[in-house]
Amino acid sequence: MTNDELAVELHTKYKGKITTALRDTGELTREKLSAYYSPGVGEISRRIAADETKLNEYTWTNNLVAVISDGSAVLGLGNIGPKAAMPVMEGKALLFKHFAGIDSVPIVLDVHTADEIVTTVKAMASSFGAINLEDIAAPICFEVEERLKNELTIPIMHDDQHGTAVVTLAGLINACKVTGRKLADCKIVIVGAGAAGVAIAKLLDLYAKPEIIAVDSKGIISPSRSDLNEAKQLLLQFTNHDNISGSMADALAGADVFIGVSQAGLLTPDMVQTMAKDSIIFALANPIPEIMPDEAKTAGAAVVATGRSDFPNQVNNAVAFPGIFRGALDHGVTHISDQHKIAAAEVIASLVAAPSADEVIPSVFNATLVSEIAEVIR
Amino acid sequence: MTNDELAVELHTKYKGKITTALRDTGELTREKLSAYYSPGVGEISRRIAADETKLNEYTWTNNLVAVISDGSAVLGLGNIGPKAAMPVMEGKALLFKHFAGIDSVPIVLDVHTADEIVTTVKAMASSFGAINLEDIAAPICFEVEERLKNELTIPIMHDDQHGTAVVTLAGLINACKVTGRKLADCKIVIVGAGAAGVAIAKLLDLYAKPEIIAVDSKGIISPSRSDLNEAKQLLLQFTNHDNISGSMADALAGADVFIGVSQAGLLTPDMVQTMAKDSIIFALANPIPEIMPDEAKTAGAAVVATGRSDFPNQVNNAVAFPGIFRGALDHGVTHISDQHKIAAAEVIASLVAAPSADEVIPSVFNATLVSEIAEVIR
Repeated sequence: MTNDELAVELHTKYKGKITTALRDTGELTREKLSAYYSPGVGEISRRIAADETKLNEYTWTNNLVAVISDGSAVLGLGNIGPKAAMPVMEGKALLFKHFAGIDSVPIVLDVHTADEIVTTVKAMASSFGAINLEDIAAPICFEVEERLKNELTIPIMHDDQHGTAVVTLAGLINACKVTGRKLADCKIVIVGAGAAGVAIAKLLDLYAKPEIIAVDSKGIISPSRSDLNEAKQLLLQFTNHDNISGSMADALAGADVFIGVSQAGLLTPDMVQTMAKDSIIFALANPIPEIMPDEAKTAGAAVVATGRSDFPNQVNNAVAFPGIFRGALDHGVTHISDQHKIAAAEVIASLVAAPSADEVIPSVFNATLVSEIAEVIR
Repeated sequence: MTNDELAVELHTKYKGKITTALRDTGELTREKLSAYYSPGVGEISRRIAADETKLNEYTWTNNLVAVISDGSAVLGLGNIGPKAAMPVMEGKALLFKHFAGIDSVPIVLDVHTADEIVTTVKAMASSFGAINLEDIAAPICFEVEERLKNELTIPIMHDDQHGTAVVTLAGLINACKVTGRKLADCKIVIVGAGAAGVAIAKLLDLYAKPEIIAVDSKGIISPSRSDLNEAKQLLLQFTNHDNISGSMADALAGADVFIGVSQAGLLTPDMVQTMAKDSIIFALANPIPEIMPDEAKTAGAAVVATGRSDFPNQVNNAVAFPGIFRGALDHGVTHISDQHKIAAAEVIASLVAAPSADEVIPSVFNATLVSEIAEVIR
């Protein structure tokens, strides 16, 4: 049975992935019902009306993350709209519960401009303890996240950007150990300048200021380009110091690291051969990577990571986001900062006791992963 | 221990009332996780993208009701805002689960005009299988519900209006049996012309066209009034046929039925004495009724109902809404109609085998209540 077939079987059997339950699993007497609802609940409302910080003391918002998407950039499927995005968002809610014990509800939106998304999310934000933005297309995702972070006082993270960036940084920290490199001295080519590519570039720069060349579907992102959106223009502030132009292949000559968040098969063995000796390849396109691991290794790569669970070194957001949100909820963090992301990446990297070419990233099943990440999100 | 104290104890202990859980309670293997999330879930998204009616086949929307409020008219507390309204909405979600096995999420809104509420709810409506509007102040609640019903294709019900109206009609059907009346021949005074009062008047008119006089805080609603909002003006199309003016006391002279959805202590024994013999009193103000049952009975009332669980004949919305939404979800009903409400009221009334002065409404704990109501919502 293929994984697609298993997906259909499970989704047909259970008709969905999550459900609600009562926190109080004892008998619900008439007296208890009156305390949970009218008239008793009025006293709880009065207390919150008098002091809104009590919301988290008395309601499920203390453990609740909304997974919010407009369905404009879903997995490898693109702009499939809110209804078709729902199974993915519900899947994310399942992961939140399974890995971190976090209550999570999927909310899909039928509006798609930054203004509309921001207005809608702000209108309902009091309902949640934190917000995980998901699968919103670049460049709108950047404005949406920035405005919501500025205008709301609950933790907000666009996981396609920052979850990916955190796990990528963690993997690179260990890949550098394995290949005897310093991250600060690496030449890194990032292919794909959407949500994930931009966030990875920013986090790597912040962490170690390596030499970064960003590449999109039109080639190297350089000042000579007239077609760059605002996010790509901002990349030029800290990438491509030598202002080179050209193709992805041009960028890769002599590079230490390839990070692909682009599309299947984009990286050829010929190109890998032009890279530095013992190169590091993070081919993260899903479900088919930019290059298959065996091809990359044959062409000279020392460490290869992908987005897939059937190869070593899976760059899986689920390594990061459960612990980050667990920590934010538990420690009253209202703003997930760059420092939080770096701290999370360092913890994740440290959980691989003896990094090797086949193990630069811990498994999502690592028993202490969530709690150790949560510990540093304060 | 008072009920308020029990409420504080329970809300402090459990820090909220609901939680999420996984539908699949078996072991979540790596293979299953890949089927519930990436990459397998992509196949489910593709199927819904190709046919949006499959949303309910594969996602939790098939069993999901959002309880949505802007916190502008909460219980007896008034306009306390979204955060303070959250415990009440979460309580409603608890009732949905407990009585009807329906998954439910509370969503509180920080916007308060009809336009803003409608726009926000429409933007997220694809996330839910049905919507229970709750505790939104009149007259905005009328416009919000009407527009959402017209513009969305999932069932929507403002429970403060229709849940109350359905249970009131059910109780009146039996109270008429107990007192030997025909509902069509009754003179009914409805005191309070907010969400519940307007909906009760409409449903009673639709069901039996009795003589109805509506009264608000300024007195009898009559054509001579210049201060009537649109909802109250519409009431004049089928109430107060004789165009009388005056006070609540004036309206009550000779009336068969008093229905109060107003405020504590408004109805005096003197007024009850001016009503018809063996009058019917539904004093539904919460938590303190318009008149206490013993006072009403001493003054001549034959049947007294209140909103409270500590007296006989509790007019409790929880008698109606779980079954109505259970039926709508199970039977693919996209529009909860007046006929559905009447059918629900008749079923509820029929579940009291031998109506008496102390039993005109079945208990919320009646074992077949939800399933029998659901059966007629098709």
